[in-house]
Amino acid sequence: MARPARTPDSAFWVDRADVDAAAGRLRLSASESRHLLRVFRAAPGASFEAVDGQGFLYHCVLDADENGIAVGRIESRVPNAGELPGRIELIVGLPDLAQTETIVAQAVALGVSKIDFASAERSGFGPLSESRLDRLSRIARSALKQSRRSCLPFLGSSRGLPEALAGITGNYRWVADVAGVSSPEVLPSSVRQLSQINAILAVGPPGGFTAEESALLRDRQFEPISLGPSRLTTSTAALVLLAVTRNRLFPIGLDRVDKNGTSGYLH
Amino acid sequence: MARPARTPDSAFWVDRADVDAAAGRLRLSASESRHLLRVFRAAPGASFEAVDGQGFLYHCVLDADENGIAVGRIESRVPNAGELPGRIELIVGLPDLAQTETIVAQAVALGVSKIDFASAERSGFGPLSESRLDRLSRIARSALKQSRRSCLPFLGSSRGLPEALAGITGNYRWVADVAGVSSPEVLPSSVRQLSQINAILAVGPPGGFTAEESALLRDRQFEPISLGPSRLTTSTAALVLLAVTRNRLFPIGLDRVDKNGTSGYLH
Repeated sequence: MARPARTPDSAFWVDRADVDAAAGRLRLSASESRHLLRVFRAAPGASFEAVDGQGFLYHCVLDADENGIAVGRIESRVPNAGELPGRIELIVGLPDLAQTETIVAQAVALGVSKIDFASAERSGFGPLSESRLDRLSRIARSALKQSRRSCLPFLGSSRGLPEALAGITGNYRWVADVAGVSSPEVLPSSVRQLSQINAILAVGPPGGFTAEESALLRDRQFEPISLGPSRLTTSTAALVLLAVTRNRLFPIGLDRVDKNGTSGYLH
Repeated sequence: MARPARTPDSAFWVDRADVDAAAGRLRLSASESRHLLRVFRAAPGASFEAVDGQGFLYHCVLDADENGIAVGRIESRVPNAGELPGRIELIVGLPDLAQTETIVAQAVALGVSKIDFASAERSGFGPLSESRLDRLSRIARSALKQSRRSCLPFLGSSRGLPEALAGITGNYRWVADVAGVSSPEVLPSSVRQLSQINAILAVGPPGGFTAEESALLRDRQFEPISLGPSRLTTSTAALVLLAVTRNRLFPIGLDRVDKNGTSGYLH
């Protein structure tokens, strides 16, 4: 007995080069097509969504299965679908690899714009290799699809904290630190101002930042935020700091624009 | 060549029955003793910490290795070490088992007092079996030790949301809901009042609460908190709601008592 078709609950990935905006058509890759056509058994006329990682979510109807390639008609495209109205970047003292994967999966779903796994003094090893970063990129893409965000964050791995802090421009800077306060102070924002926000969050590696690294963060105007009386792993601390500051910075429920069943901000 | 002794960075578990407060001594179980004596190669005179899951953290010095059982001299004991000053309980629409494990590990580190994995309409299966709850209890105990908390949370699995809500008494009640605001309103609290806080957080299963379940939560005065424009898994949503409300409720950095290098609140 054939399995019934299911409606995909994640978006599919589409390379921008495979989107023909003028013709209102897009083509999925072979592997994404296989997922839509075989796993979900989608037939022409079925609805699906695709994200291009560069800021667009496309509501599509399957037009044809061309030798295993899914071709979709674009019904509408939503700019910045699922994205926060401003930027939040993470600088994380490099932990073990399992924690880097947890951080990427959860932080991407939460809207992070950039993650720098900086090899800190207590990290115990150097920056991530290209192949490790590639693996994290695949996790990020998967999290993007599942969370129906549309902009793929930048992932990197600085050689040290000084390198990670060189050239940062954030207008809010916070570091997870037991000496801080629990509720970050933010300025009241109009919807227009939200797009100007660029927060940079720093979290120490297992064992924490050294005194020198903490002094460097203070010099660079990072304000301490306390994450509570228990000891957190680097990955949990990164997620908590991201969650706490994100909900303080963005009055998310108030300005939401929701069309076609998809969340998105108009810019 | 013998490996050098390492200082344990997690606390050890000790059953309350194995604590002789009058004599100022405690005995670890066989498996915890093995960990301290073999993995960490602790010798008499070495420092270690133990938690009893019932509200005490003990700073100890290893006295003796009695046939493989570590006997410690209690130097001091810290009541409510690593604990939040008030209670936060989670009601989570039962997700898949991997997500229940993620939630327990992270929420225990964040200070949760109770987690009820309620079989919701869209959970797709009934409440957790005793053996599943036992497995989650082991994860909770491990997270407690790692985070150096001292009170083991209660874990349960209600048959449905109505059962989970029967008899709750929380003075703050929040539910993760896209229609809400991003920043929960809390009353200003003195340190004395913080111990009276009992927040109850509800998060839907994969697919969300049904309209009937959402109506029930509204009837029971749960206020909606928006977790943002992207779609979150049940486990990430639970963690984010916990992180956001916890940092709003408790001005954690301000009232901390830190002695002997350990965080703790005095009650």
